[in-house]
Amino acid sequence: MTRRSPEEVAKLSTEAMLAEDKTVALNGIEVVEVRPGSAVAAMIVLERMANGHGICHGGFIFLLADTAFAYACNSHGRRAVAQHASVTFLAPGRLGERLTAAAVEHHRGERSGLTDVTVRNGEGEIIAEFRGHSRTIGGTPWVTP
Amino acid sequence: MTRRSPEEVAKLSTEAMLAEDKTVALNGIEVVEVRPGSAVAAMIVLERMANGHGICHGGFIFLLADTAFAYACNSHGRRAVAQHASVTFLAPGRLGERLTAAAVEHHRGERSGLTDVTVRNGEGEIIAEFRGHSRTIGGTPWVTP
Amino acid sequence: MTRRSPEEVAKLSTEAMLAEDKTVALNGIEVVEVRPGSAVAAMIVLERMANGHGICHGGFIFLLADTAFAYACNSHGRRAVAQHASVTFLAPGRLGERLTAAAVEHHRGERSGLTDVTVRNGEGEIIAEFRGHSRTIGGTPWVTP
Amino acid sequence: MTRRSPEEVAKLSTEAMLAEDKTVALNGIEVVEVRPGSAVAAMIVLERMANGHGICHGGFIFLLADTAFAYACNSHGRRAVAQHASVTFLAPGRLGERLTAAAVEHHRGERSGLTDVTVRNGEGEIIAEFRGHSRTIGGTPWVTP
Repeated sequence: MTRRSPEEVAKLSTEAMLAEDKTVALNGIEVVEVRPGSAVAAMIVLERMANGHGICHGGFIFLLADTAFAYACNSHGRRAVAQHASVTFLAPGRLGERLTAAAVEHHRGERSGLTDVTVRNGEGEIIAEFRGHSRTIGGTPWVTP
Repeated sequence: MTRRSPEEVAKLSTEAMLAEDKTVALNGIEVVEVRPGSAVAAMIVLERMANGHGICHGGFIFLLADTAFAYACNSHGRRAVAQHASVTFLAPGRLGERLTAAAVEHHRGERSGLTDVTVRNGEGEIIAEFRGHSRTIGGTPWVTP
Repeated sequence: MTRRSPEEVAKLSTEAMLAEDKTVALNGIEVVEVRPGSAVAAMIVLERMANGHGICHGGFIFLLADTAFAYACNSHGRRAVAQHASVTFLAPGRLGERLTAAAVEHHRGERSGLTDVTVRNGEGEIIAEFRGHSRTIGGTPWVTP
Repeated sequence: MTRRSPEEVAKLSTEAMLAEDKTVALNGIEVVEVRPGSAVAAMIVLERMANGHGICHGGFIFLLADTAFAYACNSHGRRAVAQHASVTFLAPGRLGERLTAAAVEHHRGERSGLTDVTVRNGEGEIIAEFRGHSRTIGGTPWVTP
């Protein structure tokens, strides 16, 4: 029996997760790329995400970052969830702009992980830094390694 | 000239902010109550907020908590934004359930504030604890005290 | 066989932990009180904890808060450690002043807990808010319930 | 009149700060290097920093990280303090071991900054990740640029 490569596990986990995950499709989020321990997601700031200043609500910046985070820490085949996350807002995201969130898992223990996500605006400027703590849970794995 | 009471300032600030804030109306969030330094918001977990397990995406729990946070720390008439926030997820929110987020501003300095938000599920159990750091910004105040 | 009360477990756990814990005795920290899920610790701001402004280094405020946190989340008999903690500094602690840190465990799951600690100065004003995430670990418990 | 280079400002700020800062000298912390927006500090885990397991108390790991943070965000000549910080503990620091903390300021706004600190043990393994939010304050600057 052939053991899958980490890249293959990431690809199959992402496909299995996308099939279940309604929040991506129904909120205009695009999962751009997933590799073992990393992921990129993107989102255009729609009218319903913006407050009266034409600035993206922090909750949607978090949603985008959290999505990249989730795909990064589920890329190893086992199911993982966020336990705790923090976000620092550095600059506004504007209406109509395409935001991208790049997640990199920095540490991975037996059951827990630490993943940083950088969110950039359409000009490539950093608008938020997110740090998430994941924990693997039971249940059917996305894919058996 | 009569000076407004804190309660009146909170009421007028909330009305001015709701008039501008598209994220509340367009995302099914209800601003239930705002008082000086506190706010309650509620949201029913819709299909587009749920992942394949029927569990509310953490990003939407954050969005709800962040909304309660924003109304609490804008209740004093001056515009305030989140600088930094953290969230701990304690239990899942389920599809169809009505979640409520209660925000209380614990500390308020000259320009910064610390606000805690507790999110509960339909049965009153705590599902998340949010802590947000606000900063007042320039621009036209919501209301002059 | 008699089952110990939570209060007795807290008392015995604290005694066992104090016997091992050199950081308390050697750093002038006093463990004032430990109850099931809560603890109070105190510390006088010594010269070696103060920077040139006569203000307590944030690291020592954290140390005091972290100590109260540790005694609160080890009060149930099982060994617990901090996984993650955050602290917000609200006002300075001054040289010679007695600071107190009061820890309350708000949530306790199967293996994890969320504990808030409030640090006050000699006049009872809040100078810092600490939030810690604990996890129980293996090893000999402090006391068998 | 010659304008000082960023490197010179960092050097002079560090010297002025070290002259005032008793916590470094009296707690066995060594400020190894400071450059514009970055700093390295080191500390040997002494008996009074260790609990009964021979493991460094998290408060001292925080103290070391916070020191590196402080020198990094005071390296621009203006006085800056921590507003908020978080730390994730990934592995234990052992008695007698030399820990190093490397701080890098990632973002710097008009008055606020975001600085990450990585703490490593004697073998170069990461034992903690710290993230600090600084704010410049008034008062005499360390050095005039």
